[in-house]
Amino acid sequence: MTRSIRLGRLRIGGGAPVAVQTMTTADTRDVAAALAQVRAVHALGAEIVRLAVPDEKAAAALGEIVAEAPVPLVADIHFDWRLALGALKAGVAGLRINPGNIGGPERTRRVAEAAGAAGAAIRVGANSGSLGKKLLAAHGGRPTAAALVESALAQVRLLEETGFRNIKVSLKSSNVLETVAAARLWARTSDYPQHLGVTEAGDILSGTVKSSVGLGILLAEGLGDTIRVSLTAPPEEEVRAAWEILRAAGRRSRGVEIISCPTCGRCEGPLFELAAEVKKRLAHIDKPLKVAVMGCVVNGPGEAREADLGLALGRGDGLIFARGRPLGRAGYDQLAAALEKEALKLAE
Amino acid sequence: MTRSIRLGRLRIGGGAPVAVQTMTTADTRDVAAALAQVRAVHALGAEIVRLAVPDEKAAAALGEIVAEAPVPLVADIHFDWRLALGALKAGVAGLRINPGNIGGPERTRRVAEAAGAAGAAIRVGANSGSLGKKLLAAHGGRPTAAALVESALAQVRLLEETGFRNIKVSLKSSNVLETVAAARLWARTSDYPQHLGVTEAGDILSGTVKSSVGLGILLAEGLGDTIRVSLTAPPEEEVRAAWEILRAAGRRSRGVEIISCPTCGRCEGPLFELAAEVKKRLAHIDKPLKVAVMGCVVNGPGEAREADLGLALGRGDGLIFARGRPLGRAGYDQLAAALEKEALKLAE
Repeated sequence: MTRSIRLGRLRIGGGAPVAVQTMTTADTRDVAAALAQVRAVHALGAEIVRLAVPDEKAAAALGEIVAEAPVPLVADIHFDWRLALGALKAGVAGLRINPGNIGGPERTRRVAEAAGAAGAAIRVGANSGSLGKKLLAAHGGRPTAAALVESALAQVRLLEETGFRNIKVSLKSSNVLETVAAARLWARTSDYPQHLGVTEAGDILSGTVKSSVGLGILLAEGLGDTIRVSLTAPPEEEVRAAWEILRAAGRRSRGVEIISCPTCGRCEGPLFELAAEVKKRLAHIDKPLKVAVMGCVVNGPGEAREADLGLALGRGDGLIFARGRPLGRAGYDQLAAALEKEALKLAE
Repeated sequence: MTRSIRLGRLRIGGGAPVAVQTMTTADTRDVAAALAQVRAVHALGAEIVRLAVPDEKAAAALGEIVAEAPVPLVADIHFDWRLALGALKAGVAGLRINPGNIGGPERTRRVAEAAGAAGAAIRVGANSGSLGKKLLAAHGGRPTAAALVESALAQVRLLEETGFRNIKVSLKSSNVLETVAAARLWARTSDYPQHLGVTEAGDILSGTVKSSVGLGILLAEGLGDTIRVSLTAPPEEEVRAAWEILRAAGRRSRGVEIISCPTCGRCEGPLFELAAEVKKRLAHIDKPLKVAVMGCVVNGPGEAREADLGLALGRGDGLIFARGRPLGRAGYDQLAAALEKEALKLAE
């Protein structure tokens, strides 16, 4: 069990629900674009949004963005400690900084004091790609789990020395198993809450897989207080994937879960199309329903007995069923609508 | 460690590499279409391909497909034991049957004898959706891990009673954590090799996530002898995802691994497009290279120090680097080609 910290109106750690994060790709200096993206990802379930703050103009833009944003915002800052002060002044709920590149202990102390006064959280952390040369050398030249933990601990100590304790930590590697090992080691070492992520995970397929494997292993073990699925893709995709991972790992659910068979030579109808239509039609329901879309009438309803609701394709038409029992039949073009009607009844 | 069994010219279990499976969606009766799909998935790394055999015409078509297929084929048969005999006669390397629905112990015995004579393997298994009513009742009405294992064990015993032992087993649930629990329990119960899969996993996003979490957990623990990622999507996608999962879980690698940053407000070039172009250009290289595509020149090369090769975007042009060290610069439209050139040199 990690300790509980505060990020805006959210609690992180200490048994609070795992919070879903993402990061905008819009230019933070473009207030309208950044805000539109913050709202879009919030609508999909993002609970914390991080924004890059590369210069003073971006730090200044944060004020307007914070005022309108429906979720706590975190400013991501490198190299320039004054940008961190600017972001705090703009009212961000948290900072992501690296004390190692913010200009030394004295400047770190000043940022921590300002964050403490503002009630903001600070995330520090280690990334397999940015460990110091000395630390790397001490760990055989490789960014091992122990090296990541040692780097994060040193950063935590720098903050603690200033009296600051509203801290979360991340230990990220682009290697999935190294990320897993580092997070486990952290959990044995410290009770500061962990932000989980696989860094530079890649495009939508390999990034989703790497994050699912790494975060899935850790979340299923009960580790992780916030997560981000890092993808070379729009942040909306990161949020969708994050929720799928949380559900698969048994940690949190949101909206309709669609289970659908992969189809085989026995399937005689347009299953892929119907599954997509069902997903679209039920996307607005946020009650946790389990809905099956199955390719054959013979096995389908039985195989999807655990589903609250489902459809199974026959030749020319299909069957709507609930918990394995038939409710009625409809033609292919009516099936998804009929299922939606039943889902709305259930959701009420 | 599982025991080793034979599937065509493949060894499964006993420490052999985890084999990647998929299942055709083409109609098995359409020989040309089925063969085209078998070849397409083989080109992407499928090592075992399963085909549904719903009727005698499909069983008859198998002969021609087997003769031309570049991988061992498995016939997936339900209800009609004679189709299993037909598939064996056609020369398939394995059968996927469910002794519970193939017509009783006597017919199961005849199928097992024919498989034994043909040197074919049989996969039996339990699926959360198709457990018997009695068994379910004995497990509190739910398809628990223990219920799945008990069902699979009963099927294995039916085969063993005929002297047949060239068996692999699957225990599939549409619930990820139940699949994980069942596979772990099997590994403590029996040494027959396991085929891993999350059943009815869903569309490309949720299916990939559920399979990545479930299979990732098990593969990282050293479990699993063959895998299938079951998606409501073309089988090519299943094979791509399977290889990504194997790599993320540290079990097997194939081709170029692209790590790329998610971009942020600091990124000043067309990173998503470049990552996609790099992926396409390097798709034909099957040497295991690690290639980074990074959004900024300042952090990029250092953060991707572990990469064999990479590019990092600056304003208007980008940097090619190898293991963190710069090799040269090129304009955006030349970058991917320049990287490909270096990759080809390295691959040689």
